[in-house]
Amino acid sequence: MAPRKEVFEGVEWRIRVAADGSSEALVPATGLARKAWLGLKGLISGFALKVRMFVKKAWDVGTNDPRKVIHCIKVGLALAIVSLFYFMRPLYDGVGGNAMWAVMTVVVVFEPTVGATLYKCFNRVLGTFLAGFLAVGVHWVASQSGERVEPFVVGASVFLLASAATFSRLIPSVKSRFDYGALIFILTFSFVAVSGYRVDKLFELAHHRISTIIIGSSLCILVIMLVCPIWSGQELHSLIVRNMDKLADSLDGCVTQYFNQSGEGTNSKEEATDNKLQGYKCVLSSKASEESMANFGRWEPSHGQFNFRHPWKQYLKIGASMRSCAYCIEALNSCIKSENQAAKLIKQHLGSGCLKVSSSSSNVIRELAETVKTMKKKSSTTDLLAEEMKSAVQGLQNDLKTIPHLLNPSAIPGNKTLETACSEATTPTVTLMELVPVVTLASILTEISGRIEALVDAVEELAKLADFGINDDKSKHSKMTDKTVSDAKQQTEGTMKALQRV
Amino acid sequence: MAPRKEVFEGVEWRIRVAADGSSEALVPATGLARKAWLGLKGLISGFALKVRMFVKKAWDVGTNDPRKVIHCIKVGLALAIVSLFYFMRPLYDGVGGNAMWAVMTVVVVFEPTVGATLYKCFNRVLGTFLAGFLAVGVHWVASQSGERVEPFVVGASVFLLASAATFSRLIPSVKSRFDYGALIFILTFSFVAVSGYRVDKLFELAHHRISTIIIGSSLCILVIMLVCPIWSGQELHSLIVRNMDKLADSLDGCVTQYFNQSGEGTNSKEEATDNKLQGYKCVLSSKASEESMANFGRWEPSHGQFNFRHPWKQYLKIGASMRSCAYCIEALNSCIKSENQAAKLIKQHLGSGCLKVSSSSSNVIRELAETVKTMKKKSSTTDLLAEEMKSAVQGLQNDLKTIPHLLNPSAIPGNKTLETACSEATTPTVTLMELVPVVTLASILTEISGRIEALVDAVEELAKLADFGINDDKSKHSKMTDKTVSDAKQQTEGTMKALQRV
Repeated sequence: MAPRKEVFEGVEWRIRVAADGSSEALVPATGLARKAWLGLKGLISGFALKVRMFVKKAWDVGTNDPRKVIHCIKVGLALAIVSLFYFMRPLYDGVGGNAMWAVMTVVVVFEPTVGATLYKCFNRVLGTFLAGFLAVGVHWVASQSGERVEPFVVGASVFLLASAATFSRLIPSVKSRFDYGALIFILTFSFVAVSGYRVDKLFELAHHRISTIIIGSSLCILVIMLVCPIWSGQELHSLIVRNMDKLADSLDGCVTQYFNQSGEGTNSKEEATDNKLQGYKCVLSSKASEESMANFGRWEPSHGQFNFRHPWKQYLKIGASMRSCAYCIEALNSCIKSENQAAKLIKQHLGSGCLKVSSSSSNVIRELAETVKTMKKKSSTTDLLAEEMKSAVQGLQNDLKTIPHLLNPSAIPGNKTLETACSEATTPTVTLMELVPVVTLASILTEISGRIEALVDAVEELAKLADFGINDDKSKHSKMTDKTVSDAKQQTEGTMKALQRV
Repeated sequence: MAPRKEVFEGVEWRIRVAADGSSEALVPATGLARKAWLGLKGLISGFALKVRMFVKKAWDVGTNDPRKVIHCIKVGLALAIVSLFYFMRPLYDGVGGNAMWAVMTVVVVFEPTVGATLYKCFNRVLGTFLAGFLAVGVHWVASQSGERVEPFVVGASVFLLASAATFSRLIPSVKSRFDYGALIFILTFSFVAVSGYRVDKLFELAHHRISTIIIGSSLCILVIMLVCPIWSGQELHSLIVRNMDKLADSLDGCVTQYFNQSGEGTNSKEEATDNKLQGYKCVLSSKASEESMANFGRWEPSHGQFNFRHPWKQYLKIGASMRSCAYCIEALNSCIKSENQAAKLIKQHLGSGCLKVSSSSSNVIRELAETVKTMKKKSSTTDLLAEEMKSAVQGLQNDLKTIPHLLNPSAIPGNKTLETACSEATTPTVTLMELVPVVTLASILTEISGRIEALVDAVEELAKLADFGINDDKSKHSKMTDKTVSDAKQQTEGTMKALQRV
């Protein structure tokens, strides 16, 4: 906005001078120079502002995740170390000008996470080896076939192998594991096979290339694993736990907000709540990152709580299960924002049931998050909470069944509470249209609880595959669960009280 | 399966011999050899089966999208052409051993689409230029500072610039446009700056590197644009149109199936319908590919119906809008599969309204798909269909309003049709629980129609930005729309008839 304003100010000023008119003959020259000067000033200040904004954005990137800055320093460090090859004579004498390949290897294989770096190193070494052997073979065949035919043999082999290797990159199972390796295969094969036509010491070239790549790769692996390592697997694990908490917050918050709309809140608190409510959107959009992390995770050795063959693929299933819940929360959100307003009477009638379902459902999700986070099975607690959720759903269904009486109160003889409630409400008989939003909400909540059961199964499958221990730290754990449950209860009660005041 | 069976057969045979007992002394040797032979046979046949399955998968990849095969041939072709550099003496003499850089450029910048290749070429050339200039400057400064200090100046500059460039790759706005360029910058800078310490003819090296990269890039651009070009923009355009059709099919199909569950269908037909119903899942999962296509699309020159600065970003908005519809269809699907069965009476009562909403909504989506596909605005038709959708929604709301009479038929004096319907049904009075699924379905359908209106706005915005023409081919167009509408009407009528028979 601001740079535009500056430019506009310049233009505005120019018009004022032109409108002056008194010194019209002189104005064009002065005006032009001034115009140019002001235009230039505007451009410069606009540019400066852009630069400032860019620097601010960059600063935010760095402060939001300091590990990114550490990654950059690690890249610089690895490159500075590998440059030593060039500067130290004994090393230079060993591999000669080919030391450059070590530098190149560091530049292209160094990735932010250990898994991605290992994947690239392994692929680079494997691709180079395979291509090197094949290329030397092809070169030998070509050199036996006479000088005139040689270029054609080499050219044809490059064409065929490059096409085949490119095709292999398009097959999903190859792509997920060896995409980079296939690229390096094509690169090395073309390099060695074609060089063979001009370079005499082909074996030496291939040997140097392979050894420098191994040196570069080893250096990368050392730096990435020793200096503040970031593990893909650990990242995936944390992402799943974080997303589960976000899902629980969204579900809880959005139902509570609906039944508590009359309750006042400060603006800043509302903003924080809004952020919480939107948390499920992170779940919706994290599929791609989950997949790449799981893909790189399997290259990582045992680290922290995770073994070498930790079932990363199961995390993808948990992620998919969470997304299926998030789709429903999206529908829930839209039904909450719907234009059809529900009758207060119905809101009162179903409020407690809906809040119970949402809070018990989110408790299950939070408990699952805790299970995944600590990697300790607490099946009894999960089962208990899941049972609580099921009974809450059953309660909501029962509440739904009693609604027809509200539609026509005279049909229930002697039902005092309901009759009192009806007489207190402004509209004694509720129309079906006023009922639709809450009924929809209730039935989406029921669906969500069903999907959470699938999520429980997925987490249990993970616990089985990854051999989660039993959490014996009973006192601490039960205290935590109790706290969660009591927090949720308190929240529900508060909302219910607010509801009573409506 | 088969390899396991083979292995098992071998084991079975060994046990039989051991049970024989009569020639026990001789058995171990023969048994071991046979066992080894059979085990080897099993391994080989298992491997052969794996290879066969892999080849089948590869064949499927090729036959499903022949353009992938063409892409592979293009890569081979480009590499074979660039190899000529090495084989033809005049060219080789021009750039010497550095001709290898042209080969490497072709290998790494050749991508399946024109946009991606242009992006990489541009980034590679720009990164190389910038880094080359900087590195030569740094080399000059270093060489002035004395032989002992030189390695440290070079090392420090590599460390600083590599860290800074790596950091820039983590800033989203830089990443989306110059990620590859920053990588190449680091690569070239390290290469030239560090080489400067050992190589005398540094200018020549930088010059050769830049000219070979330009040669390689130009060749790639020529091949990718002249031989069966695949445009990212065109792909994105088709993907959006295809997804719109899928969305319309899913929406239509899933509501029709729900109200037509009693209607029989052959198995193969059901399978085809199921595939159609699942179409919305493609919409849910195509965010990442849409983004990368839009990203590459902006590098592409004018092609086909698209100008250089075609508003590709607006396609992302349309995609997001479609996904928001797809979330609701997901919820719709789950509500259709819900365990609570709706009463037949209610299904009959709301069926026609729901079917009208779904068919008019999908007509709007199909019309939008047609608009995007032909890039011709037919605002009158879209408006007409949108109006039709709105009035269908209004009709459904009215139908909902009359439901309470079904809950208590005696309340409506003289409403013959409804009373007849009630007396025909097995349960004269419907419980609310039997009503919940249909009410939920109706309210999700209403929500979907609201989201489709947002989609209409997004497409209209695209029409404005991309300056869509007016479709003057009236007869053809109205014929098409008429066909769509009449098809939908026929379908609705058929379902309604089936519904009457229930």
